Amino acid sequence: MTTIRDVAKLAQVSVATVSRALNHSGYVRESTQKKVEEAAKTLNFHPNEVARSLYQKKSKLIGLLLPDITNPFFPAIAKGVEDSVNKRGYSLLLGNVEENPEKENDYLKIFAQNNVAGVVSAVQGNTAKMKDMPFVLLDRVTNNQKYAVHSDDFLGGTLAAQAVIHRRPKKIVIMVGPQNVASSLVRLAGSEQVLKEYKLSYERFQTPSFQSDLAEETAQDFFKQHQDADTVIASNDVYALAVMKEASKRGLKIPEDFQIIGYDDMSFSRMMYPGLTTISQPAYEIGYQGAELLCDILEKKPIKKKHIQLPVTLKLRESLREKGSL
Amino acid sequence: MTTIRDVAKLAQVSVATVSRALNHSGYVRESTQKKVEEAAKTLNFHPNEVARSLYQKKSKLIGLLLPDITNPFFPAIAKGVEDSVNKRGYSLLLGNVEENPEKENDYLKIFAQNNVAGVVSAVQGNTAKMKDMPFVLLDRVTNNQKYAVHSDDFLGGTLAAQAVIHRRPKKIVIMVGPQNVASSLVRLAGSEQVLKEYKLSYERFQTPSFQSDLAEETAQDFFKQHQDADTVIASNDVYALAVMKEASKRGLKIPEDFQIIGYDDMSFSRMMYPGLTTISQPAYEIGYQGAELLCDILEKKPIKKKHIQLPVTLKLRESLREKGSL
Repeated sequence: MTTIRDVAKLAQVSVATVSRALNHSGYVRESTQKKVEEAAKTLNFHPNEVARSLYQKKSKLIGLLLPDITNPFFPAIAKGVEDSVNKRGYSLLLGNVEENPEKENDYLKIFAQNNVAGVVSAVQGNTAKMKDMPFVLLDRVTNNQKYAVHSDDFLGGTLAAQAVIHRRPKKIVIMVGPQNVASSLVRLAGSEQVLKEYKLSYERFQTPSFQSDLAEETAQDFFKQHQDADTVIASNDVYALAVMKEASKRGLKIPEDFQIIGYDDMSFSRMMYPGLTTISQPAYEIGYQGAELLCDILEKKPIKKKHIQLPVTLKLRESLREKGSL
Repeated sequence: MTTIRDVAKLAQVSVATVSRALNHSGYVRESTQKKVEEAAKTLNFHPNEVARSLYQKKSKLIGLLLPDITNPFFPAIAKGVEDSVNKRGYSLLLGNVEENPEKENDYLKIFAQNNVAGVVSAVQGNTAKMKDMPFVLLDRVTNNQKYAVHSDDFLGGTLAAQAVIHRRPKKIVIMVGPQNVASSLVRLAGSEQVLKEYKLSYERFQTPSFQSDLAEETAQDFFKQHQDADTVIASNDVYALAVMKEASKRGLKIPEDFQIIGYDDMSFSRMMYPGLTTISQPAYEIGYQGAELLCDILEKKPIKKKHIQLPVTLKLRESLREKGSL
C-alpha cells in the first residue's frame, strides 16, 4: 500500500508538507501543492479517512438528519446538501428520523461515534443534544438557533391566502401543520393576517403530522370535519394531493367545486393534472446553502450570515379557479 | 471521558470481555453480557467507532448507492436498507449517483477511504470496481452478480401486458426503459411474449433515461412520435405520470381516450386521481432484504440464497379501462 512517505519521496518534500497540501490546511506554495497532488495521483494515493479522522479527532463525515425521506421535499434538500459537501470533500451519513425522537437520539449517538465533523438537520428537534457538534438547521427553524437556513414562512402564509381570496372562496379551511413544527404556526399567522384584513371567515383543521403515510387517512378526516369546504390552504403538498384525491373521489370537480393550494412545490405537484398550485420553497437551495454554511463553520471561514432566509414564490397551476371578483 | 477500562472495572470483568460483549464477537456468558451492557449504560459509554474501525480495518459503515434520490422508488428502497442496517448496528453513507459513472467512481473511492464494511447498490454499474468490498446489488441486476435482490422483471412485463389486452386497446405502445438498465429488456421481453401470443400489434418508444427531471420532456417526445397511441405500457411510474399529464393537457380523457399502466407503484401513483394502475415492486422489501443479505455476509453467517427474487403484483386503479372483449 502506498503511504504518505512514498508521496513525500516522489514529490521531494517533507511528509508534513504532503499532509498540509492534501488536507488543504496551512500554507503550501502553489508549485509545491501541484507537485504533491501529481505525486499522489501517480501513486494512486488516497489518505485513509479513518486514520486521518482518529488523528485529527474529527472526520470528513457530515451527519444529515431528515424527518421523512419518503416526502419528496426532503430528498430534494438532501441532493442540495450532498452536492455541496461532496464538492468540499465531505461525505454524508444518512439519518431518516421519521418524527421519532428516539431515532433522532440514536442517530446523534451514531454520528458522535463516527466523529462526524458536523450535522445538517431538517428535523426540528432538541438541538441542545447537539451542543458538542457544529450544526446547521434547515427548514424547520425557530429563532433561538445559532445557524439556520430556511425560507420565509410568514411570506409563504400570506402568499397562499392572497392566492385564494380573489377566486370566489365560499368556505375557506386552513390545514394547520403539526403544532410541534415551528414553521406551521408562522405560516398560519401569515395566512390569518391576510384573511382578517379582507374580513373573510375561515376555519382551521389541525394536521396531526407531516408523515406521508398518514396523508390519506388525514384527508378522509378532513372531509368528515369540513364537508362543505370549497377552498383549502393545505399544510404541504403531500397532504394537498391526498385531499385533492379525496375531493375527486367524492365527485367534486377541481377547481370549480373545490380549489386547493399546497406548500413546498415538490416535483410531483407539477406532474399531475390538474397541477397543484403551491408555494414554492427552494428545497435544493436550502440544502445547498445549509451545507455551505456548515462547511464554512468547519473550515473556520468568516460567516457572513448565521440565519439565511430564502424567498418563496407562488406557483399558479390548475388547482385554483380563475381570478374573479372577491 | 469514560473508557473501556472504566466499564470493565464497574462490571468486574476484563477489558477483553467488555470488548467481546459490546462488539458481539466471541463467547460471553449471558449474565456477563448483561452486566457489561448495564455498566456501559450507567457510565454512558459508547465505543468510539473510528478507533474501532482503524483497529479492525473495517468500520460499521455501509455505503448506499442510489441512481436518483428524487425518484420516490429509491427513497423507499433506502428506508428498507436503513431499517435493516440500523437494527444490526451499522450506519449508512449516502451516495446519489444520478446515472453518472464519474460520480459512482467518486463514491466508491470515498467509501473505500472510510473503510466501509460493504456496499448496497441500486446502480447498475461496473461492479468490477467493487471487487475488494462485499456488496449486494438491488433492483437493476444482471445474472452475473454474486449477491442480488430484485423483483421478477419478466413476470412484471407479462402482468403489464396482460392487464391491457382485455381493455380494448387500439394502438399499444411499449415505453422501453433505458438500454443500459438490464431489467428494462427483461420486462420488454415479458410484455412482448404476451402481445405476440394474443397476436396484438404494438410499437416501441425508447425512453432515453430514468432520470426524473427528463420525464416531462420525454412525455412530449412520446406524443410527437405516437400521436395516435391509446394504450401505453410505461417504463416506470414517474414517466407514466408525465405521459398521463401530457395526455390530459392534449384533451384526452383517461382512461376512455387514453389508458396507461406504470411500473414501480411509488406512493404518489396511489395518491392521484385517476390513480395510476401499475406493477408493484416491493421497494422497501428489496432494500430491507438486500441489507440483511449484506449484513449476513459481513457477519459470516450462512447464506441461504445469493439471488433473492421478490414477487411483483398488479395494482389496478383508474388509469385503465374496464375489462371488455378483446
